[in-house]
Order: sequence, then C-alpha cells, then structure tokens
Amino acid sequence: MFKFLSFLIAFFFSLGLLAAKIDTLVVSSKSMRKKIKNLVITPDSYQKKELRYNVVYLLHGAGGNHKSWLEKAPELEQYADLYNVIVVCPDGDKTSWYFDSPVDDSMKYETYIVDELVSKIDKKYDTVPNAEYRAITGYSMGGHGALYLAFRHSDIWGAAASMSGGVDIRPFPLQWDIAKRLGEYANAPEAWEKHTVINLTNLLNGENLDFLIDCGVDDFFYNANLRLHQKLLERNIPHDYIERPGGHTNEYWRNSIKYQMLFFNDFFQKSKEQTK
Amino acid sequence: MFKFLSFLIAFFFSLGLLAAKIDTLVVSSKSMRKKIKNLVITPDSYQKKELRYNVVYLLHGAGGNHKSWLEKAPELEQYADLYNVIVVCPDGDKTSWYFDSPVDDSMKYETYIVDELVSKIDKKYDTVPNAEYRAITGYSMGGHGALYLAFRHSDIWGAAASMSGGVDIRPFPLQWDIAKRLGEYANAPEAWEKHTVINLTNLLNGENLDFLIDCGVDDFFYNANLRLHQKLLERNIPHDYIERPGGHTNEYWRNSIKYQMLFFNDFFQKSKEQTK
Amino acid sequence: MFKFLSFLIAFFFSLGLLAAKIDTLVVSSKSMRKKIKNLVITPDSYQKKELRYNVVYLLHGAGGNHKSWLEKAPELEQYADLYNVIVVCPDGDKTSWYFDSPVDDSMKYETYIVDELVSKIDKKYDTVPNAEYRAITGYSMGGHGALYLAFRHSDIWGAAASMSGGVDIRPFPLQWDIAKRLGEYANAPEAWEKHTVINLTNLLNGENLDFLIDCGVDDFFYNANLRLHQKLLERNIPHDYIERPGGHTNEYWRNSIKYQMLFFNDFFQKSKEQTK
Amino acid sequence: MFKFLSFLIAFFFSLGLLAAKIDTLVVSSKSMRKKIKNLVITPDSYQKKELRYNVVYLLHGAGGNHKSWLEKAPELEQYADLYNVIVVCPDGDKTSWYFDSPVDDSMKYETYIVDELVSKIDKKYDTVPNAEYRAITGYSMGGHGALYLAFRHSDIWGAAASMSGGVDIRPFPLQWDIAKRLGEYANAPEAWEKHTVINLTNLLNGENLDFLIDCGVDDFFYNANLRLHQKLLERNIPHDYIERPGGHTNEYWRNSIKYQMLFFNDFFQKSKEQTK
Repeated sequence: MFKFLSFLIAFFFSLGLLAAKIDTLVVSSKSMRKKIKNLVITPDSYQKKELRYNVVYLLHGAGGNHKSWLEKAPELEQYADLYNVIVVCPDGDKTSWYFDSPVDDSMKYETYIVDELVSKIDKKYDTVPNAEYRAITGYSMGGHGALYLAFRHSDIWGAAASMSGGVDIRPFPLQWDIAKRLGEYANAPEAWEKHTVINLTNLLNGENLDFLIDCGVDDFFYNANLRLHQKLLERNIPHDYIERPGGHTNEYWRNSIKYQMLFFNDFFQKSKEQTK
Repeated sequence: MFKFLSFLIAFFFSLGLLAAKIDTLVVSSKSMRKKIKNLVITPDSYQKKELRYNVVYLLHGAGGNHKSWLEKAPELEQYADLYNVIVVCPDGDKTSWYFDSPVDDSMKYETYIVDELVSKIDKKYDTVPNAEYRAITGYSMGGHGALYLAFRHSDIWGAAASMSGGVDIRPFPLQWDIAKRLGEYANAPEAWEKHTVINLTNLLNGENLDFLIDCGVDDFFYNANLRLHQKLLERNIPHDYIERPGGHTNEYWRNSIKYQMLFFNDFFQKSKEQTK
Repeated sequence: MFKFLSFLIAFFFSLGLLAAKIDTLVVSSKSMRKKIKNLVITPDSYQKKELRYNVVYLLHGAGGNHKSWLEKAPELEQYADLYNVIVVCPDGDKTSWYFDSPVDDSMKYETYIVDELVSKIDKKYDTVPNAEYRAITGYSMGGHGALYLAFRHSDIWGAAASMSGGVDIRPFPLQWDIAKRLGEYANAPEAWEKHTVINLTNLLNGENLDFLIDCGVDDFFYNANLRLHQKLLERNIPHDYIERPGGHTNEYWRNSIKYQMLFFNDFFQKSKEQTK
Repeated sequence: MFKFLSFLIAFFFSLGLLAAKIDTLVVSSKSMRKKIKNLVITPDSYQKKELRYNVVYLLHGAGGNHKSWLEKAPELEQYADLYNVIVVCPDGDKTSWYFDSPVDDSMKYETYIVDELVSKIDKKYDTVPNAEYRAITGYSMGGHGALYLAFRHSDIWGAAASMSGGVDIRPFPLQWDIAKRLGEYANAPEAWEKHTVINLTNLLNGENLDFLIDCGVDDFFYNANLRLHQKLLERNIPHDYIERPGGHTNEYWRNSIKYQMLFFNDFFQKSKEQTK
C-alpha cells in the first residue's frame, strides 16, 4: 500500500499536481528603510486554505541570502509537505549576524525579523500567530542568529535550534565582519559580551524555550557549542544536544535540518495537545 | 495533496487495507536448546513481496520480553510502513544482557541472535541479507546489547544505536543479574571487563559501523554514556551523540526511537546509493 | 571510669540537673520593622556564667524557621554541652535567602543577622564577641546563606560551613522565590551574579576565613558545590571539602552537623591557642 | 555540670585513676617466622571487662613502627576512652606495604594482619569478633595498607579509611622499597597492577564496606586519591571523600584521625542498631 502511495506521490509530483509552493516575499523594512527579500515555502495543502499553519524560520550563514537554504537542502519542499509547515527564509544580509548593530543604523536585523517580518508573515499567510507554533533555526551565523533571537524573544518563538552555530563570537574578532557590526572587540568588549549567545543563558528559565544544539566534532565552532552545552547543563536548562561526525559543511546541514524539522514537528504536536 | 494522501492512508487503515503486520516467530535455539519468541513487524507493502526489505532489530531492557518494544512504542507499525523496514524484537530473556554467559550454558543470547535469529529471519522473510541493510538498537540493557553485538559483529550489522544504554556494567555489580551471567565482579573481574561495551572500542576502526549513542542527562547511565562518548572522541571513532532532557523512562525511549528510525533509514539510503 | 562518667551524665540528665537550655529570643529588627524569633541553645554549664562562650549560628533551608534545626538534629543540645558553645538558630523567613533584597524593603536578612542579631546575642549572652569565636553554617538555602554572609563578613565570622548548600543560584531561576528577592533572572542578571556564593570567591584571601563545604553526591546542588570547590582550588583558597553518599535529606544534615561542630570546635581551640 | 565532669576527668586522670591503658603485644608470626610488636590501647573502662569492645586497627607509614601512631597523635588514648574502642597499632615493618610479597618470603604482612593478628587480638581481648565492629585506617603507606586489606578482606573489616594514602603505587617505581616487595616495575608490571589499591575497586560492590578517603591538596599522593575518588564515583561505589588544606605531614594526620574515629564510631553505632 505504501508503495502505491509513494507511486501516487511521485506521479502527482511529475504532473505538477503535488508540490509545495515557493514564493519570494519582499518586505519593506521601516527600521532599515530598505526592501528585503524572503523566500517562503508553503506546503502543497496550503492552497486549500482550510488550515492555519505552523511556521519555521530558517536563517542562512555568512555570505548567504534568502535562497541559500533551499539551494543547500532542496528537500525543504518535501519537509514542508510532510510536516505541513510554512518555511520562511529571510535574507539576513551577508554578515548582519542578525543583530541590531549599535554602530550602524542600516543594520537592524533583529528588529527586522522580530518586529517586521514575523508580523508580515502572520498577516499575509494563514499561520497560527503564536510562539507555540513558531520555530527558528539556522546554520553557522544563522545558528547564532536563531538562538540569539529566540533566547531574547521567547515570546515570539517557542522552539529553536542551531546547527554549527557561531554561539560564541569572541574567539573570532577579525572574521565575518562582526567588528563592523559591533565595533572592534578591543574597543567595544561590552558590545561583544552582550551580543554573543553564550552570555544570554540568563534569559532562559528552563521552561520558556524548547531548543536543540547540533554541531559537528570537526567544526571550528565545536568548542563554543560544547561550552554552551556545558554551561546550560550547569545552569540546569533542559535542551537537546547533538554531536555528529563532520565539519562546517553543506552536507552536515542538509543532514541536520532533517532531524530538526522532526524536532520542531514534535514541538508543534506537543503544543497542540496542550491546548486541547 | 498531502492532506488527500493522509486521508487515503487513514481511510485504507480504517478498512484494514493498509497495515503493518505483526507476527510472533518462534525460533528453536540449538545453542540453548529452547524455543524463543520474537515479535516481527512487516510493513504494509510487504505482502506483495516484490521487494527485499531492510531489517531493524530492537532489543528490550531488563525485565522485558519480545513484546516490550511494541507496548512502549505502538508507532513502530507506522515506522515500519513509513520507512519500509522489517522490525524484529527478540525475547532476550529478562536479564540475559545479550551475552554468551561464560558460567551458564543456558544463556547464549549472543549466539542466538547473531547466528540463529538473523539467519532465520533472512530465510523466512524477504530481506536484504547483508550488514549494509541491517541495523540494531535497544534501550537500557538492550542499548548495551545492541552496541555489544554490533561492535563485535560489524559483519552482521552496519548500523547500530543505543538509548539509555548500560554501556558500562561495572558500576552495577549487584544489579539486574549481571553477576549471574558473568560471575561476581569481585571474583571474575576479567569477565566483566571483557563484556562491557566501553571496553570494546578497539573493535571499531572508524569505518566498519555507523552508530548513534543517546542518553538522557538525568539517567543513571548518563555518566557511562558520556564516558563512552569521550573515549570514542579520543580514539577518533566517528559516531552520533545525543543528550536530551530526561531520565530512564518509557517516554524517553518512545521519543528516541523516532529519531533512530530516521538515522537507520539514512544509513539504508546511503547503502543503496553506494551500491548503485 | 568513662562508664562511670557516662553513668553520672545520664543520671544527672535524668534528674534534669544536666541539660542544655533552649530559649526563644525575639529580636526587633529595626531594618525590617518586624519581630523575629530565634532559637538559642545554651550549654548546661552556661548557668554558672563564669565563662564566655563561643557561638555557632545555624541557618535553616527554604520553607523552614528557627525551630527547623533542632527538629532535624535534636542532638544539638548534646553538642552544645560537649563543645561548650551557644547555638543560635534565627528564623530566616521561608525564602529570604539571607539577602538584603534589592527589590523588597521587608527582606533584609543580611542586615538583620550581621548587624542586629549578632550584637543582640553578644549583649544578652556571655559570648566572646569576636570573629575568632564565632562560626556559621546551614543546610540548603542556609548553606548558601552561611557562606554568603561569612564570605562578605569575615570580620564577623572566622569560620563557616555549608551542607548541601545552594552555592550557585543561577541554575534555579524559577525556584524557591529567589526571583522575588532579586527580580527575574532574565531581567536582573547582575543582581543574580552578585548574590551567588560562587561569584564571591574574590572576597577570600586564603587567610580571613576557615571554611568547609559538604555536599552529597546525589544532591541536585552537587554540581554547584563541585564547581565552587574547583574554583577555590584554582584560586588557591584553602578550605575543607567533603563529598558523601546521599542526597538533599534530613538524614544527610543530621550526620553532617556532627562533623561540622567538631570542625568549629577545632577552630575555636586554635583561636584560643593563638591568643595565648 | 559539664565543667564539673571535665574537672572530674582531669582530676581522676591526674590521680592515674582514669586512663586508657597501653600494652605492647608481641605476636609470633607463623607465616614469617618472626616476632612482631603491636601497640594496643584499651579504654579506661576496659578493666571492668563487662563489655565487648569494637576494634580500630591503625597502620603506620613508611619508616614507622608500632609506636608511630601514638607518637603522632597522643590523643588516641582519649579517643579510646571517648568512643570505648580498642586501638591496635601493628608494626608493619619500615616498608612492608602490608603486602604478601610475591618475591620475598619474609614479607607476608597481609597474612600476618588478616590471619594472625586479628585472631590473636580477638582471643586475647574482649572484642566483638566481627567485621561489623572492626575498622582499619592508616596514613601514607598505611593508608594504602588499610584500603588494600579492607578491599580484599571485607569479611574482616566492615569499615576502613585512608589518610594521605599511597593508593596508586605505580607513579613511584623507585621509592620506599616497593620494588623490593614486588620486583622492579619494569620487570613485574602485573604484580604492581595487582597490588595497587586503585585497581581493586572491583572487590567492592557498594555494600560490603563503609569507607572514607582523605588527602591533603598539597600532598604528593593527592592526584592518586583524586583519581581513586573519581573511579569510585564512576563505578557507583558509595564512599566519603575529604580534601583539606595541607600536605604529607604529621599535623594533617593528627587532625584527620580525629574525624575518622568519629566516622568509625558512627559505623559501630549503625552496626549496633541494625543487629538490635
């Protein structure tokens, strides 16, 4: 029977009858006074508009844009269908680090995503406009971004994850334009301390966010992720923690996102059961 | 479209047209001269017998039997359908620890599973009779068992996992009948050293087995799993490692098996691609 | 001979001739404008008033009051006799954490104990009014309290101890009203950092306080105590450190106090020898 | 009243009326064919012979003899009185290490103490001839000896302790004649592995021995004691563990024995309660 269904799915796909849909949504950011592109994947079932959908936000790494995620993991369309979620991939600039930069007014990606993008998505799409049905993750700079935003805004996202995330930026004072966003580390150490995920654990109380940290043992961010994990253990903050073979690679993320979509689906199911 | 398919699946299920099938297979163990029950789940598609199927072996914990797994995770039927695998749950005796006991001839569960059960399954069912298409996991005593058997027989299983596994037995000299299987720890320390997973890492070369270790941070086996993980890192042996909130509970295993079935499915897909 | 003495002690006890005495001392706290009860045990020899006595302050855990210590360890009376000390058990409110709360004027238990209670005791009782003859300890919240007060006021207490102490409060942002005393951790991280024992090691110079840390290996505060111990080792600050089997239980504290009274007695003897 | 009693004790002591008694007991060792001296302290109450007494064995360090303990801690007499125990201090030769030497027939101190001395003591003195009422400890080589003997003979001693114990001999291949007892480490590694305390944890099952490990943080044996502690934690074997400021000194041991006598007294009380 399953084979028959698989056949049906493949058949309908080939006819173009079964397909997640991919939009490019342009949002005018008031805070930054510029237009920003976002890729939005709606599941095949979405057209019928009978449901309200959970939303997963995916943040790209340094050098990427709103199309990076789909290029790295084309299966996202199938995950959207399989789990019945809307996937949103914003353009986070090549190296915004998803901060509101204290030194550059044109870089307010925290404000953009938290205030502008989420409300736009909830307005334009049939979503459940609620932290319990919203999740966020990302790779590398986007892993930092996902945890940075979710730790600071657990009223917006109820679940978060990171893969190969730059969860401690301090070991990298010269790389990926972080100094352009925060000032040179030597001159602005407080800004660096305030904007790095590993220093934000006080925002978690063990109940306000479900999250998962995943990093490859050969990744240059491995040590930072391990330290974040250990600090969370010390602070008694529940979280899933995964180490896998592998480095800072597309292959790692393509595998990782598969498990994270399952993790988010579990979270959404739990939210559903609790609100019944 | 997905909703339509979901509807179809639900519909056919309700008619009994779509359903994994559950058998109890009794195998006569030559080595132990007794009959042993095994629960076998074949996916819905199996009846048509057009395919050869991958097989996942699931080992129960202390006190359990061949029915324990299905009682703890009824979703196994759906996983069998979703991933098109045969699931085999042997009765490992309440406390065999899946050893060949050096002190009790009636306890040869390593021989039983490795030599007798696997060949019986491959004979009786349409399997791919090959390590690349066979996996094994278990919880608690069964987590120990899965890694113990897979480390020692990577020619039989190409992938393995453990959840809440008793991967170091030495901290528990008085519990779960281990002393009955191996002799008192004080008198037979060599037997204990030889039969504990954490001492078998020399059997791994980093290529002969894909495996995953998963244990809750509140589990009494947590420390042992963490030490196994650290030893594997030191020895440069690739493996997936997961820590989650939670203890030694059914709830933990029910969640864990969901991710492990996905892990095994990935392994089987990889095997397929490599043999193309 | 000893048997004869034991007989004598038992005999005099039975006649009520030999007995530590238990008072309830009510102190009017100026800082908090309320009356606070304190249990005071004077040794049998005290009535004769020929001596000046050393004083041990005992702080209770969350949910307790001035009577908790004596209920948990009735032997305190015998320890008072055996070591010739006065024992003072203040009511520290159910969850004062022995702080001066920065957000609640009615919670100034640091001021109360350090400024008001100690001087009252020294006035009302024949004490040696001197850090060299004063010690403080407690269990759980009271273990935190004892070290918090002694680290900050080594001019008041020359010896201190903790059993099962909450020496790092940050892992428990939602528990035992700590947030009511300091503000929510997410909003007031500086207050939490400033009021947790593990961050106060800079107040110690290796000479100004004799102290002992004791925690059971199954206690949920074990990790915090281990980290405090390791930090003290790194910082080269001498201290006694004890780990025993056991968890966060009355049984643990009843055993622990026996050794701590001996530790304090040693300290008092040393003080005596040094002032000769 | 207590002052009065103290006065009485001091008074009777000064008259020689109240006093533990010190014997030198010479035992002919069959196994070694030599006479060995042992110092035995009986409590003051002993003369009346109405009681059966608990016994604490104290082992000296390298270079010492049966008189070393009393020289280092004259208070032993008072402890004997206070806790009503018999204290036995055998001469363990300057560097026997309390082994049965596999290479020197004249060195069988394990046999001597376990088989010959204990039975002699139980014959000659009014003891409770039972592991539940026997304890053993020692400093340095004697700390090794106490744990070595108690781990291997938990049927003889129910409680044990070590202070500054040489619990891992392997880091010291050239010192204290160990090579004379076991053979050069380079040539006889198995003998060294078999005769070092840290390798004997398999003899413990978590129930057959109550024991305490105590070592100063500046001691050259500190690291070995820390490793033994950590191995015991991993193996789930309950034990008391104490670290104090200090090195390998008489001062350390004189302080330590005070707490260990209390620990043994607790053990004897517990034994008594359980046999009621």
